[in-house]
Amino acid sequence: MTARKTITPTHRYRNNDKLIGIGNEFWDLSERNGLAGIVADYDGSVLRTVPGHEFVPDGHEFVNFSCCSYLDLDSHPKVVEGGIEALRRYGVLDHCIARSRVQIPAMLELENSLGELFGAQVVCSIAASTATFGLLPLIASGHLGDGTRPLMIFDKNAHISMSNVKPVCADETEVVTSRHHDLDFIEDACKKYAKVAYVCDGSDSLGGYAPVAELAELQDKYGLLVYYDDSHSLSAYGERGIGYVRTHSPVLDERTITVVTLNKAFGTSGAAIVLDGHSKETLRVIERFGGALNYSQLLNTASVGAGLASAEIHRTPELKTLQDKLYGNIGLFDSLVETDQSGSTFPIRLVPMSDTTVIEAGRRVIEAGFYVSPVFFPIVARGTAGLRVMMRAGQTEEQIRRLCSVLVEVGARPAPRPEEVSA
Amino acid sequence: MTARKTITPTHRYRNNDKLIGIGNEFWDLSERNGLAGIVADYDGSVLRTVPGHEFVPDGHEFVNFSCCSYLDLDSHPKVVEGGIEALRRYGVLDHCIARSRVQIPAMLELENSLGELFGAQVVCSIAASTATFGLLPLIASGHLGDGTRPLMIFDKNAHISMSNVKPVCADETEVVTSRHHDLDFIEDACKKYAKVAYVCDGSDSLGGYAPVAELAELQDKYGLLVYYDDSHSLSAYGERGIGYVRTHSPVLDERTITVVTLNKAFGTSGAAIVLDGHSKETLRVIERFGGALNYSQLLNTASVGAGLASAEIHRTPELKTLQDKLYGNIGLFDSLVETDQSGSTFPIRLVPMSDTTVIEAGRRVIEAGFYVSPVFFPIVARGTAGLRVMMRAGQTEEQIRRLCSVLVEVGARPAPRPEEVSA
Repeated sequence: MTARKTITPTHRYRNNDKLIGIGNEFWDLSERNGLAGIVADYDGSVLRTVPGHEFVPDGHEFVNFSCCSYLDLDSHPKVVEGGIEALRRYGVLDHCIARSRVQIPAMLELENSLGELFGAQVVCSIAASTATFGLLPLIASGHLGDGTRPLMIFDKNAHISMSNVKPVCADETEVVTSRHHDLDFIEDACKKYAKVAYVCDGSDSLGGYAPVAELAELQDKYGLLVYYDDSHSLSAYGERGIGYVRTHSPVLDERTITVVTLNKAFGTSGAAIVLDGHSKETLRVIERFGGALNYSQLLNTASVGAGLASAEIHRTPELKTLQDKLYGNIGLFDSLVETDQSGSTFPIRLVPMSDTTVIEAGRRVIEAGFYVSPVFFPIVARGTAGLRVMMRAGQTEEQIRRLCSVLVEVGARPAPRPEEVSA
Repeated sequence: MTARKTITPTHRYRNNDKLIGIGNEFWDLSERNGLAGIVADYDGSVLRTVPGHEFVPDGHEFVNFSCCSYLDLDSHPKVVEGGIEALRRYGVLDHCIARSRVQIPAMLELENSLGELFGAQVVCSIAASTATFGLLPLIASGHLGDGTRPLMIFDKNAHISMSNVKPVCADETEVVTSRHHDLDFIEDACKKYAKVAYVCDGSDSLGGYAPVAELAELQDKYGLLVYYDDSHSLSAYGERGIGYVRTHSPVLDERTITVVTLNKAFGTSGAAIVLDGHSKETLRVIERFGGALNYSQLLNTASVGAGLASAEIHRTPELKTLQDKLYGNIGLFDSLVETDQSGSTFPIRLVPMSDTTVIEAGRRVIEAGFYVSPVFFPIVARGTAGLRVMMRAGQTEEQIRRLCSVLVEVGARPAPRPEEVSA
């Protein structure tokens, strides 16, 4: 018998050997230090570990400073009751059939509510990654634009839920990766190509916003289409929580497509695709050909009901109160620990640590009763390791002061001129 | 200014121009005949259209014979109450953070319950498509096997949630498409390649099962890995509803991977990846690097609670009672209308119609109070058009008899020797 054939991969857009080869080490090291693989009961403010983790003691209590529910709407009684009410009202979690055939009005109800909230056309999805996997190929083939296939530029920092779709788009058009927010590169491409689409985060998971105004200039000048994932700023930012992109982009028409998850600051499950100016025909194409957007599993009624309740809160002064509490907490943190994000509205802070100390630092922080996520090489470049801290509206002044004091003990830079900030 | 560059696509694995060009026509025609884009309130057995559809009268009542909740567990009071109870108990729909870092025990609870039910290792996901998009690239790169990159053979009829991932897999290994259930092609590939993986439905959405026993022979002989989507048979088939693949495959080890949605006969939301014999290290790789399996949105607590309740029903005699009712209804249908599926346990029947009459036939059926899905060219080959009928346990004898009588009126073949079947 002759030797059977082995395969050499192309690895043009992805490389599991590399990703897993280096990433798994990061996760293993995190887990051995009790910073990953944690299972904990939740009582609304404190988590308590359950038995079973090899490296985490049972019953250890900690505050989660790495949860993206920035306004604590996930545990808001009205949101939880909204989920229950809709489940009772519809009598099913889902009625299993593709929505392009027959649908119960549940998801439409949420789409209408969010459409009013955002002043936009909204299509819901079970997750932002599902929406992205459905939409990007339609952008690639020109079906969400004027029919011209765009050069698709993926920002190198675009979340993996977007960059994972590169090979799919590359079968429908040309795909390239740009440096982070490289406006010159994008403009050069606009000069060369009949159509260009740029894919990036509106708000980054390591802190920071997209250059929305500068991109709008390119949109106006060249018809650039921009696809934003603005999940980290929805609810936490802007009037009625419309997020960073929709607050600042002057181009709210078919050239701007924004996807947002509903399970971060919005506090529920699922995602929303936020569109403007599309024809009924284009919306039908999205619904029919956007991959899982037309499979037989819709956003379930519990998510719909919770979403309707959260949207209602967004229409009341309570939203602003919660945002102000979040900003107050961010300000308090910034008055105690210095980071590159200090002074911004962004709810994420990356506290710099050295590559050699970050894991030990994270371990000491959770032992002191706070979970923050260590990020280090190979997840980020050497020399840029840190502890990622996520601020929420419901964190107390005492919790934040204690956390910051522990962070400073383990090597964080104290803020230059600590001032008392009233909570 | 020189003419700006336009792009010629490769279209090796997908072609939106073709898909949308021909598919949209199908949907438009269906919609104009009141057979698509229907929105209807659900009261547990009958749907009632809501205002707004251009081609469907308001308040029209119909029984949905195109819903995949084959056992009607979606509206089972215990399933709905299970969802409510878990939402109350956990106090959140989700606690937004990647599970590889910190998770509340909700989804683990369901994984443990389903693991016991299936006698397997279970990883849950928000949808089968999400699981597939997470797993197939790991199979492609050899990380779910022995490290050897397999030739990946996608069955030409594999559901689009699988075939959509071809370009992603093709950046990690070689990808080909085979004819439907082409065992010779698969065996030839096994002789040539060091490793082969075959991707197909365990149970088809147009009726029919995979050749599980024959594939098992190739698995034993060559180490073939088979990835099944067995969504249409879960709960509806087998002892405790374990589905077709797990009932019949003698190879339940790391060479067989099955994904099943939980929103068809199981009656809830989400999906389960059903595995056997994988090491803790491999399970960690799936959890950490299976795409959205490690994003910060888990299966929400309402889905978990409903799933726990449905799993409990699967452990009682009620499951067999529901299956028997389903099979009784299938038998009654077969006694009245002849299809290629007659006599099988499959809950789907494709009632043949001619290309020119199928739409009009579908229209007359919904006017008579029953929704069945028309499928016709270009969705299926010319000459194979039909009305797709989905049977459920809760359909009444009267409903089935009336539907079959309408079907025969619009051109269905009556069963050769109609016999009385007691319901």
